[in-house]
Amino acid sequence: MITKNTIKQIASLRQQKFRKELGLFVVEGRKMTEELLHSDFEVDSLYATQAFLDANGNAFAQAETVSEVQMAQMSALDTPPGILAVVRIPNEKPLSGKAGLILALDGIANPGNMGTIIRTAEWFGLRDIVCSLDCVELWNPKVIQATMGSVFRMNVVYAPLPDFLTEQKRLGKAVYGALLEGENLFEMGGKAEGILVIGSESHGIRAEVLPCITHPVTIPRASGSETESLNAAVAAGILMAEFTVTARNEAV
Amino acid sequence: MITKNTIKQIASLRQQKFRKELGLFVVEGRKMTEELLHSDFEVDSLYATQAFLDANGNAFAQAETVSEVQMAQMSALDTPPGILAVVRIPNEKPLSGKAGLILALDGIANPGNMGTIIRTAEWFGLRDIVCSLDCVELWNPKVIQATMGSVFRMNVVYAPLPDFLTEQKRLGKAVYGALLEGENLFEMGGKAEGILVIGSESHGIRAEVLPCITHPVTIPRASGSETESLNAAVAAGILMAEFTVTARNEAV
Repeated sequence: MITKNTIKQIASLRQQKFRKELGLFVVEGRKMTEELLHSDFEVDSLYATQAFLDANGNAFAQAETVSEVQMAQMSALDTPPGILAVVRIPNEKPLSGKAGLILALDGIANPGNMGTIIRTAEWFGLRDIVCSLDCVELWNPKVIQATMGSVFRMNVVYAPLPDFLTEQKRLGKAVYGALLEGENLFEMGGKAEGILVIGSESHGIRAEVLPCITHPVTIPRASGSETESLNAAVAAGILMAEFTVTARNEAV
Repeated sequence: MITKNTIKQIASLRQQKFRKELGLFVVEGRKMTEELLHSDFEVDSLYATQAFLDANGNAFAQAETVSEVQMAQMSALDTPPGILAVVRIPNEKPLSGKAGLILALDGIANPGNMGTIIRTAEWFGLRDIVCSLDCVELWNPKVIQATMGSVFRMNVVYAPLPDFLTEQKRLGKAVYGALLEGENLFEMGGKAEGILVIGSESHGIRAEVLPCITHPVTIPRASGSETESLNAAVAAGILMAEFTVTARNEAV
């Protein structure tokens, strides 16, 4: 039987402070939990409602049954999906060291954008993402849900971005930066290697990062369009799509 | 002086039922309000806090001053930006009738995705968006905010999608559909004209719409990637980027 104290503790994991203190985060929903159970993440505990278990057969038989009310108290979602896992926060994996494109995020603050960018990066075959120290925390429930499971497979590290990029530049790597004034994305050549920097929703790439950019790149806007910018996750998606397809075509 | 009743009425506009009943919707924030005042939308009333007016000069001098508490009661946002406009819902504009690419949305339910797609469509020079009748409502505050102002300039209509697409197909238009199995987006030719259909977050393009698709198109996934899909707004962005750049290149 789950105790009131445990329920309270799980609910507290909505806050970064308690995630840090307890070293735990929460995963919700059938698909996300399936992906979790197929990953090498350590599940601390797993809870489901009877209705969820009735509808989803034996795949989650190890879950402890809780009432709808208890689930609603633990869940961070308006409509609790009926299954919730408490998961140990792993040690930060190092970057894979693989050749290829690395994504660098400068101050991404919106958790939905962050999760979507991680999901998109996996789609296009990237492995490594370096986040500035002020990016939204990876274990935020909205980030986790927006990754749709990619969080369990990607290497995401937090580091002082100017230091990381300065070192990459010193090593001779190309550092691409998404900027409003740069080379036309669709007219650039080989981009199979290097770092791609995406700026924040409100400030773009910040002043202290700009000197590290060796190749400014722009997604051209249609003439006559009055929009000032693209959503950060959409921009990241378009850049990763184009970078990786160009790389594939040049490899052929 | 704003009355308690007016505050209550404005707060009620968070709900679609009352937006429909009153024919009004709400816009919040400095940038969004600027874009609104430069548009042909009819502003019913405009409210600002003294702090906002002090910080933003005379550009919003016509606003009625309200207290921070009153603003918080009206605002749909956790952190009210301090300026809020009540706006008359206009009659649906017809499609522009311009040649070019039209976007069709099949059951987009997430307001952030909906707004982001509208914003991205404007960036790439599209004018017309046709939404299935069950897409999230355009005047939802989260849709409005996510458009970043594009909502004031784009033509967005709601229509039974199978009927609309069947007619377009009869007229000989290409109906492209974003599907997991289709022609490789990056190997397709001219796409300057036609309809591009984007499916919903959970079901993709639905069974009743599938027979209308003349050209299934796929954003290829990297080999080894375990993600099942892309976010709908990211997918729409990548498709619109590629469609319009190919069109531009072929026009040259």
